[in-house]
Amino acid sequence: MREVAIVGAGMTRFGELWQSSLRDLFVEAADQALTEAGVDNLDGIYVGNMSGGQFVGQEHLGPLMADHLGMSGVAATRVESACASGGIALRLAFMEVASGMSDLVLASGVEKMTDGADVTNILATAADQENEVYHGITFPGLYAMIANAYMSADGLTETDLSAVAVKSHYHGSMNPKAQFRRKVTLDQVMQSTMVADPLRLLHCSPVSDGAAAVLLCPLADAHNYVERPVKILASGLATAPLALASRGDIAQLDAVAASAQRAYDMAGVGPDKIDVAEVHDCFSIAEICCIEALGLLEHEAAIKGAVTGCTAVGGPMPVNTSGGLKAKGHPVGATGVAQAIEIFEQLRGEAGDRQVEGARVGLTQNMGGSGASSVVHIYEGV
Amino acid sequence: MREVAIVGAGMTRFGELWQSSLRDLFVEAADQALTEAGVDNLDGIYVGNMSGGQFVGQEHLGPLMADHLGMSGVAATRVESACASGGIALRLAFMEVASGMSDLVLASGVEKMTDGADVTNILATAADQENEVYHGITFPGLYAMIANAYMSADGLTETDLSAVAVKSHYHGSMNPKAQFRRKVTLDQVMQSTMVADPLRLLHCSPVSDGAAAVLLCPLADAHNYVERPVKILASGLATAPLALASRGDIAQLDAVAASAQRAYDMAGVGPDKIDVAEVHDCFSIAEICCIEALGLLEHEAAIKGAVTGCTAVGGPMPVNTSGGLKAKGHPVGATGVAQAIEIFEQLRGEAGDRQVEGARVGLTQNMGGSGASSVVHIYEGV
Repeated sequence: MREVAIVGAGMTRFGELWQSSLRDLFVEAADQALTEAGVDNLDGIYVGNMSGGQFVGQEHLGPLMADHLGMSGVAATRVESACASGGIALRLAFMEVASGMSDLVLASGVEKMTDGADVTNILATAADQENEVYHGITFPGLYAMIANAYMSADGLTETDLSAVAVKSHYHGSMNPKAQFRRKVTLDQVMQSTMVADPLRLLHCSPVSDGAAAVLLCPLADAHNYVERPVKILASGLATAPLALASRGDIAQLDAVAASAQRAYDMAGVGPDKIDVAEVHDCFSIAEICCIEALGLLEHEAAIKGAVTGCTAVGGPMPVNTSGGLKAKGHPVGATGVAQAIEIFEQLRGEAGDRQVEGARVGLTQNMGGSGASSVVHIYEGV
Repeated sequence: MREVAIVGAGMTRFGELWQSSLRDLFVEAADQALTEAGVDNLDGIYVGNMSGGQFVGQEHLGPLMADHLGMSGVAATRVESACASGGIALRLAFMEVASGMSDLVLASGVEKMTDGADVTNILATAADQENEVYHGITFPGLYAMIANAYMSADGLTETDLSAVAVKSHYHGSMNPKAQFRRKVTLDQVMQSTMVADPLRLLHCSPVSDGAAAVLLCPLADAHNYVERPVKILASGLATAPLALASRGDIAQLDAVAASAQRAYDMAGVGPDKIDVAEVHDCFSIAEICCIEALGLLEHEAAIKGAVTGCTAVGGPMPVNTSGGLKAKGHPVGATGVAQAIEIFEQLRGEAGDRQVEGARVGLTQNMGGSGASSVVHIYEGV
């Protein structure tokens, strides 16, 4: 397999972008990525998107987006693994370049969620319809069950959980593309409306519109396009049962652990080498579970990561410096690619106030459903 | 890139399968494919599916299907390019094995369309929502426009069109997995209900449930699994604008021609070497357009292919020996994989009454929408 690098990145601001359609969002992000690399042709496009059919009545986004980018004809396809769709797009673009089949491939993600669709019920189509959703549960309830399991067995407190959200908003306040750029206090989080006990409004990521795109090429060609490319060391994908009831311990995210192990094995680096990570904090509890499953911190340290400042910029294991899904926003299909962009910027030393000093190796972890699919990528600045 | 082979295949009967759910259908097909090869582990699964979210309220099919196959944990993802979703699943499985990333990858497709969903409108989400569907058109109307353009410019007659359906049903009558196993006469086709002038009911593929799966591995390992593997020589994917109004000549399917050219170039064989082909006849007009765009027959011969018997089993260029989408059925996400299974059987000499004598090289062409995406694969018996 050939070595692969990222040589361009682009993303829209995340938020309620009522003036932009699904195709507008994609083109804005894709165009930035191509412009950065000075490229006006592509061999392939992957579009990560969870539910264009349900959100805005539009499937078949591969050819649609290629055409609107002015590149009709190019091989293009949409891929979906619920909220991990963007991570899957990145994985497949990586594989296409690594295989030698193509030289210039765009990995993108896009979602348009604020056009009046029944968002909670559409998102619930990523859970098990027959064994979960028909019985009345949606994602806040599923993650609340995970949080309760974690709290009762492991001494996680509401303060630990709420400190994650405070840290996310602090990071988001420094990210010009974030949906929420305001800081929140621990008290504000702990007084916010209860959604599904113990998860409150400020423990939940928002409903968002947005798009993100990165351009991949063989590492050997990367310096033809940009001065500071970022190498993709590895891609790991794993699954777990969709239904929580089919799992052993619901506080353990097996797909996250397995996808990480595959990526660490492929990269030849372990979690101790990761300088900065973006993980899938769709709810604050998810950040804690993921940090532990990825092996970035031990159990107790993962629980206390935000309270102690360990996972903040300036701490020993900075996580979600972008603001994470919580503050940056979570247009579901775009999220996995936006995570890669944060790491791309960090490893190039271009993350502004959010910069992690000396960051050399980074990781992204993007998951679907209540953790039934997880995709991990590891990156190195070159 | 490594050479890749198909070593197992499985599919459900296509039809109105009310007793089987989406997951049941997948498991039935996947299990057959694994059993044929004597395999009980996988490195990856691709699930081609157009609209699980809209048809049955279920997205996120990668982990769901892996789990129900008894293989939870395996890397699995859903891919979508409307009615070309199955072909995309095959392409990505091919790429994953060719790249060296994985050794045993299942390419599958599944769709459940008869559970009371609003099928015509859901299928229309593969057309351009903003520029076509919001103005009232659905797929029979779009293909009728293509047929009218072809008729007015090129002398195609209703008899030519209807002969395609007669041939499809004749082939389908010999296929035990086909939705329609009864022959129809030219008169029956030409007297059937008008759907969208000039397309009548018997020019249209049906609404179907079904699943199909093929197992891929490196060619070098293939004889460990089966006596007669089939090598995949090439994969070509191309796109065109979704909206007919954005194309030059709507009777010309540019994405089909471009995807074929990419596949011919990769395989190092031209259309003159193809012994048997499965093409995307969602409507009878599509078979004629595709045969021409693929270069299998010249313009006039493509129009007269069914009338002269050229494209029937026993003719010089047999097309859609399975019965095609018209008679075999068209569970949209499964179609592209089912096409590969027909060629797999033909190149192994196992197609029964439908067998093309001496078939050595075969082709499949699977497309989405009104031809906005097209994926072509070329195969050789080894």
